[in-house]
Amino acid sequence: MTAPGADLPDLDSIHREALLSPSAAPDEAATHDGTGRVRLRFTPADRDVRVPPGVTVFDAASWNGIAIDSTCGGHGTCKKCKVKVLGGDVPVSRLDERAFDRAQLRAGWRLACLAGAVQDLSVEVPPLATRPKAATVGVGRQVILRPAVRKRYVELSEPTLADQVPDVDRVLAAMDDLELRVHLHALRRLPAVLRVSDFKVTAVYVDDLLIDVEPGDTTSAGHTLAFDLGTTTVVATLLDTATGTPAAVASMLNKQQPFGGDVITRISATMTDPDALGRLRELAQATLAELTAQVCAEAGVDPAAVYEVALAGNATMTALVLGIDPEPLGVAPFVMSSSTFASVTAADLGLAVHPAAPAYVLPSLGAYVGGDIVAGMLASGMDRDKRLRLFIDVGTNCEIVLGNGERLLATAAPAGPAFEGGAIRCGMRAADGAIEVVRISDDDVSVQVIGDTDPLGLCGSGLVDAVAEMVRVGLLDTSGRFVPDEDARMLRPGLADRLTRVGQERVFVLAWRSADRDVGDSVYLSQRDVRELQFAKAAIATGWALLLEELGVLPSDVQQVLLAGSFGSYLSPASAIRIGLVPELPVLRIVSAGNVAGEGAKMTLLSVPERTGAQTLLQEVTYVELSDRADFNDQFVDRLAFPG
Amino acid sequence: MTAPGADLPDLDSIHREALLSPSAAPDEAATHDGTGRVRLRFTPADRDVRVPPGVTVFDAASWNGIAIDSTCGGHGTCKKCKVKVLGGDVPVSRLDERAFDRAQLRAGWRLACLAGAVQDLSVEVPPLATRPKAATVGVGRQVILRPAVRKRYVELSEPTLADQVPDVDRVLAAMDDLELRVHLHALRRLPAVLRVSDFKVTAVYVDDLLIDVEPGDTTSAGHTLAFDLGTTTVVATLLDTATGTPAAVASMLNKQQPFGGDVITRISATMTDPDALGRLRELAQATLAELTAQVCAEAGVDPAAVYEVALAGNATMTALVLGIDPEPLGVAPFVMSSSTFASVTAADLGLAVHPAAPAYVLPSLGAYVGGDIVAGMLASGMDRDKRLRLFIDVGTNCEIVLGNGERLLATAAPAGPAFEGGAIRCGMRAADGAIEVVRISDDDVSVQVIGDTDPLGLCGSGLVDAVAEMVRVGLLDTSGRFVPDEDARMLRPGLADRLTRVGQERVFVLAWRSADRDVGDSVYLSQRDVRELQFAKAAIATGWALLLEELGVLPSDVQQVLLAGSFGSYLSPASAIRIGLVPELPVLRIVSAGNVAGEGAKMTLLSVPERTGAQTLLQEVTYVELSDRADFNDQFVDRLAFPG
Repeated sequence: MTAPGADLPDLDSIHREALLSPSAAPDEAATHDGTGRVRLRFTPADRDVRVPPGVTVFDAASWNGIAIDSTCGGHGTCKKCKVKVLGGDVPVSRLDERAFDRAQLRAGWRLACLAGAVQDLSVEVPPLATRPKAATVGVGRQVILRPAVRKRYVELSEPTLADQVPDVDRVLAAMDDLELRVHLHALRRLPAVLRVSDFKVTAVYVDDLLIDVEPGDTTSAGHTLAFDLGTTTVVATLLDTATGTPAAVASMLNKQQPFGGDVITRISATMTDPDALGRLRELAQATLAELTAQVCAEAGVDPAAVYEVALAGNATMTALVLGIDPEPLGVAPFVMSSSTFASVTAADLGLAVHPAAPAYVLPSLGAYVGGDIVAGMLASGMDRDKRLRLFIDVGTNCEIVLGNGERLLATAAPAGPAFEGGAIRCGMRAADGAIEVVRISDDDVSVQVIGDTDPLGLCGSGLVDAVAEMVRVGLLDTSGRFVPDEDARMLRPGLADRLTRVGQERVFVLAWRSADRDVGDSVYLSQRDVRELQFAKAAIATGWALLLEELGVLPSDVQQVLLAGSFGSYLSPASAIRIGLVPELPVLRIVSAGNVAGEGAKMTLLSVPERTGAQTLLQEVTYVELSDRADFNDQFVDRLAFPG
Repeated sequence: MTAPGADLPDLDSIHREALLSPSAAPDEAATHDGTGRVRLRFTPADRDVRVPPGVTVFDAASWNGIAIDSTCGGHGTCKKCKVKVLGGDVPVSRLDERAFDRAQLRAGWRLACLAGAVQDLSVEVPPLATRPKAATVGVGRQVILRPAVRKRYVELSEPTLADQVPDVDRVLAAMDDLELRVHLHALRRLPAVLRVSDFKVTAVYVDDLLIDVEPGDTTSAGHTLAFDLGTTTVVATLLDTATGTPAAVASMLNKQQPFGGDVITRISATMTDPDALGRLRELAQATLAELTAQVCAEAGVDPAAVYEVALAGNATMTALVLGIDPEPLGVAPFVMSSSTFASVTAADLGLAVHPAAPAYVLPSLGAYVGGDIVAGMLASGMDRDKRLRLFIDVGTNCEIVLGNGERLLATAAPAGPAFEGGAIRCGMRAADGAIEVVRISDDDVSVQVIGDTDPLGLCGSGLVDAVAEMVRVGLLDTSGRFVPDEDARMLRPGLADRLTRVGQERVFVLAWRSADRDVGDSVYLSQRDVRELQFAKAAIATGWALLLEELGVLPSDVQQVLLAGSFGSYLSPASAIRIGLVPELPVLRIVSAGNVAGEGAKMTLLSVPERTGAQTLLQEVTYVELSDRADFNDQFVDRLAFPG
């Protein structure tokens, strides 16, 4: 420990304590290395981690899979998270004063949950009393189970005339390592539950809120529910809180579909029809409610035993399901009502789960980088990986995040509907009958169709494949033009019969659907389709190119590209490289990340530190607005062509 | 200021700060005079006040009508409540460090809202920038208006592509002296309200919760609603938050009446009928809802502009309206589910006022000293008056509080239904036709009847009057027995015709209702009625006698007796003295306090410090349980007789 500075004799302790508060920015600058992160070395785990200054030692460890004892989950009440600071300075907090004696404080002992890291530290973590459970979620992320929902079994003494302590105080006294607030629902149930169970009960609390008391020992049973509220598809995952594993998963189309396929059409509806906002809210909530009933029925779980829900959605979906007017999201300057949503309940989302269940709504960074992307960053560890990584969620609105463990940049690119099959002649959504994979050989085209049925159309991944293959075999030049008929016939005689016209427009038939090979009845790719894809991929490529430029790195420096979202997961990495949707890199660096929004939502239910991490991202990520950049159009035009 | 103690060199500041926290009890004992209060001297007001140790200088001043500047209402954020500590020691808090320079701190300047008084202090209060408004409520209590509901008009800059700050952050930034949480309802309204009003809006917040944003400047309009939820009668008062004055008052019978006249019959109903709790809750809520509609209609106020409600009721009424199982209140050992009710909303009470309106529910001290009595103590200043005062709320359950400015003792006495007209031959509730005043002269009896109609029966105050007058004129002896017929005729020949019998029982006719003077058709007092009243008043007198004994004072030391509740207010002080219901004191010391429960509820809406005061009472009042006292029965028998 550093001795009190000579210039701050009697106020030094207070002053050092003030360093821990979030508003003490000027002092922080002086104590860390200026890269935006401080370095923590944990022993005996022998791990170096880098976190934003001010993050507690407890959170820094938890985020990186290093377990520190705690029963209160980092709320500063249980006093179990003792660590020894071997290098660097952590001021003594008020609670440290109570937890340790003078000699221990001098030796560096601190409570990890109150120890904010504002400079590089070396920290020794004592061995755990019990081995914590962990679950693997997201992109290979190991998460230590520290859910916000907790249960505790307590046996209480019965009241007498000499001990008329109110019921709730009797319960709280048995859990005095916590400082719980009490929900009215718990007060309603307490008198009967205590007396039916001989005062042996299980307290159910979420974060610091006591939501229920159950007769007997029910600590082994409990569930939470994670929602990925997509514009198109909604996914619900029922989690077992005791094990951290999914008990059931279900998905369905968002019932808001009749109001339009993308967020802009749904926002427009609210601007022209005064009833539309209420109706859209009902439809989103009905979707969540139906999925809740499905997963609970499948797992045989009483919905009233679902104690908490989490929801990840883009900023528009989040606004609509909460009944917040979305209009300012749809028109410049694209402003949210709020980026965070405290004290929302499951009831606010129209869910008939536990009557006192809170809802954690993932925060949004901006009107077009929403809670789904924050969840995705969490699930893919964008905020803690030291590699240079690019996260791309491909869709009508394409969100792009670039991170290198020091800085995180995000932007949104207006890709348009091509990837969803919109504005494409034979385009369709990725559903049964959609061609999702295309391979072109010398004399044939082989396709894979979703649902193994006859081909009905072309979905986004099939579109990217088709264009990439045509570029590869030379039927499209790098400018995106169909090569002249005679050149094509000479180059690929075996494919000549597939090159034809629909009206004036040149097309390439991917699959005939009738024996007479009628082009009108086939699934084909047109010249105009290629142009649509070029516009879409150029918007995305411009996005990541400008982010790379902002960070001062080259495309070839990127160590991993994560393709997220339902579309991104099905995309062929090789094709994505060939059309220039992603930087030209070894194909193994392009990874399908899966439904990272849903995974991130699950993580916030399984781990309070991860939830803190999600909120921290709001401060860590720099949003780069593309629409007012002078160099956007130049870059865009440059990016229209396919890589040579 | 005291120099840091030599035994606490470098941790002294932290240590002193810890003294301010509520759990620092051992240190407090060393710094105040042991009487349970510390003394604060305020200049230039030249006022001495005594408060429990730990109360802030700000609250201590506010509770005693001494105004200190503040815009945040004592939340430690506005830094306006500057005072100078001239005598005694108040540690420097972290915020003091930011609000004052070293020289000012050395001179004793502190923020009053963070300055906990743990020893006697002398405090200089600077003149106010603006004169605060005050209202007179309760028993002559002057309350400075610092309602939990506040409004502030703000003019905001409009967002641009270069400034995409979310709507709510824009509002909060304009009020950065506060640290507000945000209700979902406010987020729903924000986008439209900001844009319809050119970003000139009025923020509405209750305590630290932003509940709404209204277009333009609406700071002059706003209402709150106080309920006195009695077992029999329910009263609603609509308050104008800007002036602190009532805009409308309405009362009606509690719709729970069909379930029985007192709390015990209603509790019993829930024990035998599983639907009764739900039904009783609905009926209580329907009563509140009907009164809300009435007062809002009368004052021409939109119910949606009622921003907060407060409710005072006994423990059973409070439990029933909140849907809490009341059974343990009705059977020994008489235990509450909870004494306090945090985060209850107006919606939880079934009220269609502002959708985000919170509800403040007065805390209960015990199963039979409820929130109505806490409100009554507040309204009558029981917690701060230095006189020896006795507070008696007369009813089926009679609550008694004794205070001397140092200690507060409370108990409940089971008086039975006599005062409500129950178990009395001609008894009735205080309604039209009830005899409420009785005067007996040498040869006649004069009565006052409620509603100026023909007498139908005898209510509680009439019963007390009738017995007191009969004792005075000698028709009853001090043991409560009707004197022998021949003695009565000799003593009061002019009243002889009123002394007769109904069946075997001797009665005294108070009013004939027919020309033929048929006793069966008259309103009379029977020997058994007198016995019922004796039991009732003996229970009460035993209550206060034991409290006086506990405090080591004599009945004649009592400087004021407050008779509270709807019955107490109508009682004749002289008659109450004569039958021994209250101590034998000069009649001017017996004061009718009126509906103090409703007044107390109003005070908690008008003043946050008063609300804090209500919560503080939970710690300050010692509850004395009568039912397990060995000396109760002896005292009770002694108290059956009327004073000689």
